[in-house]
Amino acid sequence: MKALNIPENKHPRVVVIGGGFAGINLIKNLKGKPFQIVLLDKHNYHTFQPLLYQVATAGLEPDSIAYPLRKIFKDFKHFHFRVATAQSVDLKTKILLTDRGPLDFDHLIIATGSDTNYFGNESVRELSMSMKTVPEALNLRSLMLQNFEEALLTDNYSEREALMNFVIVGAGPTGVELAGALAELKNVVLPKDYPDLDIRQMNIHLVEAAGKVLPPMSDESSARAQRYLEKLGVQVWLDTMVKDYDGKKVLTNKKDLPTRTLIWAAGVTGNTLEGVPSESMEKGRILVDEFNRIKGTESFFAIGDVALMKTEQKPKGDPMVAQTAIQQGETLAKNLLRSSSGKEMKPFHYKDKGSMATVGRNKAVVDIKKFHFGGLFAWFLWMVVHLVALVGFRNRAVALLNWVYNYFSYDKGIRLIIRPWKRKITIPKEETPTV
Amino acid sequence: MKALNIPENKHPRVVVIGGGFAGINLIKNLKGKPFQIVLLDKHNYHTFQPLLYQVATAGLEPDSIAYPLRKIFKDFKHFHFRVATAQSVDLKTKILLTDRGPLDFDHLIIATGSDTNYFGNESVRELSMSMKTVPEALNLRSLMLQNFEEALLTDNYSEREALMNFVIVGAGPTGVELAGALAELKNVVLPKDYPDLDIRQMNIHLVEAAGKVLPPMSDESSARAQRYLEKLGVQVWLDTMVKDYDGKKVLTNKKDLPTRTLIWAAGVTGNTLEGVPSESMEKGRILVDEFNRIKGTESFFAIGDVALMKTEQKPKGDPMVAQTAIQQGETLAKNLLRSSSGKEMKPFHYKDKGSMATVGRNKAVVDIKKFHFGGLFAWFLWMVVHLVALVGFRNRAVALLNWVYNYFSYDKGIRLIIRPWKRKITIPKEETPTV
Repeated sequence: MKALNIPENKHPRVVVIGGGFAGINLIKNLKGKPFQIVLLDKHNYHTFQPLLYQVATAGLEPDSIAYPLRKIFKDFKHFHFRVATAQSVDLKTKILLTDRGPLDFDHLIIATGSDTNYFGNESVRELSMSMKTVPEALNLRSLMLQNFEEALLTDNYSEREALMNFVIVGAGPTGVELAGALAELKNVVLPKDYPDLDIRQMNIHLVEAAGKVLPPMSDESSARAQRYLEKLGVQVWLDTMVKDYDGKKVLTNKKDLPTRTLIWAAGVTGNTLEGVPSESMEKGRILVDEFNRIKGTESFFAIGDVALMKTEQKPKGDPMVAQTAIQQGETLAKNLLRSSSGKEMKPFHYKDKGSMATVGRNKAVVDIKKFHFGGLFAWFLWMVVHLVALVGFRNRAVALLNWVYNYFSYDKGIRLIIRPWKRKITIPKEETPTV
Repeated sequence: MKALNIPENKHPRVVVIGGGFAGINLIKNLKGKPFQIVLLDKHNYHTFQPLLYQVATAGLEPDSIAYPLRKIFKDFKHFHFRVATAQSVDLKTKILLTDRGPLDFDHLIIATGSDTNYFGNESVRELSMSMKTVPEALNLRSLMLQNFEEALLTDNYSEREALMNFVIVGAGPTGVELAGALAELKNVVLPKDYPDLDIRQMNIHLVEAAGKVLPPMSDESSARAQRYLEKLGVQVWLDTMVKDYDGKKVLTNKKDLPTRTLIWAAGVTGNTLEGVPSESMEKGRILVDEFNRIKGTESFFAIGDVALMKTEQKPKGDPMVAQTAIQQGETLAKNLLRSSSGKEMKPFHYKDKGSMATVGRNKAVVDIKKFHFGGLFAWFLWMVVHLVALVGFRNRAVALLNWVYNYFSYDKGIRLIIRPWKRKITIPKEETPTV
């Protein structure tokens, strides 16, 4: 029987696991070429991860940062998409096992991206929120609003404080942007929604193990971003390590922070696949050569966050960001074509287009080569770059409309608890008041 | 301790259960008046139910038809909202029990709306989809898309047919509008997404026990709506009763319809509250007098779908539609004010503003008094009426943008399985193909 019901085809079969930036940019560059392409993803949509934090903070609809994968490739021939989760691969027999059955391939491209890294801390994994997918961002939006609804119901000061406090661990772009957005909610939105609560009890703590926020950026931009954060009221804890979390209090090497909401944005690791030889792995990522070939193999590749391309110049590889994934996808597509027509492949070289992070209204920082700037222009540039990068006209239009609305109304309107988040550590019953 | 932590107040306390059309229009008309108002709802948002079918069919984002209740009432004084589910009421002691604790009141207003009526058929209740809330509409959207993804994986003709068929029971406005929207997905959207499937296997069956579609509308409009539906390819089954459903096949008195998706839009019943005396109830709704007072009580009221106001002229009461709820909310607000200043209350009279239903692009039917018309103008009128009725500028703008996009692109772009629906009757394992 046909594997996953995919018809046989005269062209070699390229199986791509993952419809993130790497996977979709690879496939786009193979349009009309002599390959049969099979894309597998757990979800039927591509997620624009850089804007997940805005979904979590009621600024954007989830549906404007997600885009149906079938729609991206609707004009492609010899293209097949299946909603399936890859389970393991056998590189010798060239068979991939998925939750929907096995699939044979000629070329395999692992583009499974990254997952949250808890560095082995099980209680943090169990009790913290992460923000790598649309459902996770929606869970965080629900939990934040549920916390405020709960805070109204208790007279216990410390319980209320824990409900209204937010601790974000990791001051990379995700942590910084989330902290800024939460601070804006605190400053202009939540006091109107919850006049019965004393908003001064809400504290946003941003905890970072390194000595500065946005560690990969220039010192100038880091310092500027920290100033912006502090101006918005975020408490920045540098050189601070989280030791443990019990669902109510975060223990650090400096101070204990009471909170019902720990958001873990402190680390990422590769989202790897069983069956990749352990000698081709390092720290949860797949070692690849300069053509993104999995070390020790010929026609199996890994691209994007999951791939680790160590070179003499860059012993730690390129940064785990969207740009790397996009560029590796494009380069690999060209190399597959070269290879199929007997030409030599060209090595991958990362082009650093700069990096940026936004903290809040009119507040962003940008590093482009030697230029480091911030403020209104940086913020505007950040919006344009992200708007253009969104997939599809409808998504861009809806996102722009929301941003314009949010900007002029000083509001973030999507404060909906669509599906309440089920707490793992419940609020004590005895604190529920009686008449 | 204070009930639900709501501060005591010199004004009489009005507890409103339910933030639907009835509840919010009541409260809006009590702005600045000498009452303390407590609104309870299971959700923290108001749902614009007439457009739920567009959420289910990927035409609108859920977030553009839901609106945070706190935001509606953000300028109100002596107003308190709590996310809570009412459990039972004691009208003698004037205490309402909720899942978040008890609450005492002076006036009680039950505005809990309606729920799906399965007429005692347990297997239909267990296995069918309904569409009364945003999560339910999202579940239906997910299931529809999951079915198509599943259909790709099977070679079994009848299993594929059951996955691609949709049976909607009840040809009221919800059923008709949903059938039309599904037909448009079949005609212009799904064939592009699923070129490997034979779209002719997709059938949309609309089953109605009465002798015409849109039973409450004029014969002219009913006939026109049926023509529209049939033109779009919907199979309309009149005088047809559903007998049973096993998750795979709908048994009717005419023909058995194989389907994995039964959508039940055939009946509504009041969403009542334990503690309302049984002599004040009829067919699951609360009997009220012409002032919306619960029969046999003085200061307890029911408004909207849950209330049944039988008069000599209208022995069956007014229709269970948004207009009735809105008007009863407004009238009751005025009557509460009259009553508190010692004046007599005025009886409620329903003003019929007409009724309408849309079937698809340029296809709608409208009855306004003696005028019955259809086509492009009716369709345009339908859109304007629904757009204006949406709560909030942002929601209106996003909905309009989506409609304009859908109209010109012939697309419905929000084909996202955000949270997969868990089937109760699973697809047999042996049908999963192997290599």
